[in-house]
Amino acid sequence: MKIRPLQDRVLVERLEEQTTTKGGIIIPDTAKEKPAEGRIVAAGQGKTKEDGSLIPMELKVGDRVLFSKYAGSEVKFDGNDFLIMGQDDILCVVDEA
Amino acid sequence: MKIRPLQDRVLVERLEEQTTTKGGIIIPDTAKEKPAEGRIVAAGQGKTKEDGSLIPMELKVGDRVLFSKYAGSEVKFDGNDFLIMGQDDILCVVDEA
Amino acid sequence: MKIRPLQDRVLVERLEEQTTTKGGIIIPDTAKEKPAEGRIVAAGQGKTKEDGSLIPMELKVGDRVLFSKYAGSEVKFDGNDFLIMGQDDILCVVDEA
Amino acid sequence: MKIRPLQDRVLVERLEEQTTTKGGIIIPDTAKEKPAEGRIVAAGQGKTKEDGSLIPMELKVGDRVLFSKYAGSEVKFDGNDFLIMGQDDILCVVDEA
Amino acid sequence: MKIRPLQDRVLVERLEEQTTTKGGIIIPDTAKEKPAEGRIVAAGQGKTKEDGSLIPMELKVGDRVLFSKYAGSEVKFDGNDFLIMGQDDILCVVDEA
Amino acid sequence: MKIRPLQDRVLVERLEEQTTTKGGIIIPDTAKEKPAEGRIVAAGQGKTKEDGSLIPMELKVGDRVLFSKYAGSEVKFDGNDFLIMGQDDILCVVDEA
Amino acid sequence: MKIRPLQDRVLVERLEEQTTTKGGIIIPDTAKEKPAEGRIVAAGQGKTKEDGSLIPMELKVGDRVLFSKYAGSEVKFDGNDFLIMGQDDILCVVDEA
Repeated sequence: MKIRPLQDRVLVERLEEQTTTKGGIIIPDTAKEKPAEGRIVAAGQGKTKEDGSLIPMELKVGDRVLFSKYAGSEVKFDGNDFLIMGQDDILCVVDEA
Repeated sequence: MKIRPLQDRVLVERLEEQTTTKGGIIIPDTAKEKPAEGRIVAAGQGKTKEDGSLIPMELKVGDRVLFSKYAGSEVKFDGNDFLIMGQDDILCVVDEA
Repeated sequence: MKIRPLQDRVLVERLEEQTTTKGGIIIPDTAKEKPAEGRIVAAGQGKTKEDGSLIPMELKVGDRVLFSKYAGSEVKFDGNDFLIMGQDDILCVVDEA
Repeated sequence: MKIRPLQDRVLVERLEEQTTTKGGIIIPDTAKEKPAEGRIVAAGQGKTKEDGSLIPMELKVGDRVLFSKYAGSEVKFDGNDFLIMGQDDILCVVDEA
Repeated sequence: MKIRPLQDRVLVERLEEQTTTKGGIIIPDTAKEKPAEGRIVAAGQGKTKEDGSLIPMELKVGDRVLFSKYAGSEVKFDGNDFLIMGQDDILCVVDEA
Repeated sequence: MKIRPLQDRVLVERLEEQTTTKGGIIIPDTAKEKPAEGRIVAAGQGKTKEDGSLIPMELKVGDRVLFSKYAGSEVKFDGNDFLIMGQDDILCVVDEA
Repeated sequence: MKIRPLQDRVLVERLEEQTTTKGGIIIPDTAKEKPAEGRIVAAGQGKTKEDGSLIPMELKVGDRVLFSKYAGSEVKFDGNDFLIMGQDDILCVVDEA
């Protein structure tokens, strides 16, 4: 079974944050939203232009990305949780090198 | 009797979720919206472009899809319930292979 | 007396629903909006494009259609009630064959 | 004194409705808005396109029209009340033939 | 000292309404907004198009106009009050002939 | 140190209003917003068009302008306060001649 | 590890403000929002145009900038805090010369 996102949507596998708060109360540094981390596991073909052709995707399968914690819709496949969101909800790619 | 959706709308037959909560209280994992599953049973011809031609549909009859639980309008034909929604409300296609 | 809707508006004659609730309390199946049924009795010529030409209508007089229960404005002519709405408020055509 | 509406605005003279409710309490049929009736007494030249030319008006002086009861701004000239509104606020033309 | 409005803005000198309500309580005819009257005393060169050229103004200095009572920002020059507003806030021109 | 506003933003030095209210209570003439006065001290190069070229600015350094009292963000450089705002927030130029 | 912002987003390192309020209560000058200062440490390639090409960025790595205090999302890399925001959230560049 394979997921094929439509248009410029991507399927994201959330990466766990190594939170080290053992038994303590979490005190946020600021009121600002902190983005979540994930990996692209499937990507659409891109948005359709007015002339029918496609704007190619800037993201590809395997990219490690940051995205807004409130972005996307949760989906469950083969016992795993994923998120589906538009490419615009992805803030940046983290290049591992 | 046949339904012909206008523009880029699709007619979706909802697929039942195998919920296994027997006599228990449902505890949601997260506050995030979980999409519903369905199958495309009829599709419009696509959105009309400014020059009068059509942007072809990315979805076709038979596609198994995920969509937002709150998307679309309910319609009843021949004793069955369907949903009518725009192609933009469809999150992804689930390829069965 | 004849009604000529402007742009891509249509004049719709509502078709009665055969509700069979005799003396009972109506219990809605879901919280979802159910569309109403009607027939197109007059249609505009279509939306004007930027270059002055028209995008032809997808609907024609005689079409049996579903539309949102809250769409349109009511008008009364020769003792009959009609609805005027834009083509975008029409969800689908019901082909009788 | 003559009124010249700008762009695609029209000057509308409201036509009185023959309400026959003598001494009775008005019971609305539905919660839906019912449009008002009027006659076009002046019309703008049309909306300016990006290239500087005009999109011609679909309405002309003399047209009997229906419009939303809440559309437009009231203006008073020579002791008469008129309404100024955009062409988009006009729902349909009533052809008298 | 001269005022030069930017883009398609106009400088309007408000014309006084001859209100004849002497010592009486004002009873509004309807809940509808009544426009105010004024004269164009300065006008911008028009909106800039995407290609850098200008869409010429439909209004010129000297035009007697009606505008929404709530439109524009008040400015004071040489002891006189004026209003600055966009051309879109002008409802119609009153031709004096 | 020099400020270079991006796109079509301008840096405005506020000009003081000669308020003469000595020991008195300020009674506003109307509820309408009165614009503030200032001078352009730096200007961006203009908005980028779809084809990559620039729409030239209508304002230039030295222009005396009126702007909405609530427009812009305050910035402080070398002990002086300035405002940064878009060209659209400038209502008009006051030509001193 | 390197951050690659998508589209026209930039990665900003916040510069500390030299606040000199020692033991005192801060009394704001005005109710206006004061922008924050930062330095661009990574920049996207620019927004994709309809024809698939890119609108080049006006900002480059190393630029000292002012931005709205409420703009962007916080991200943490290698123990440092950064902000990710769109180029439109940057008010101006501060040229150090």
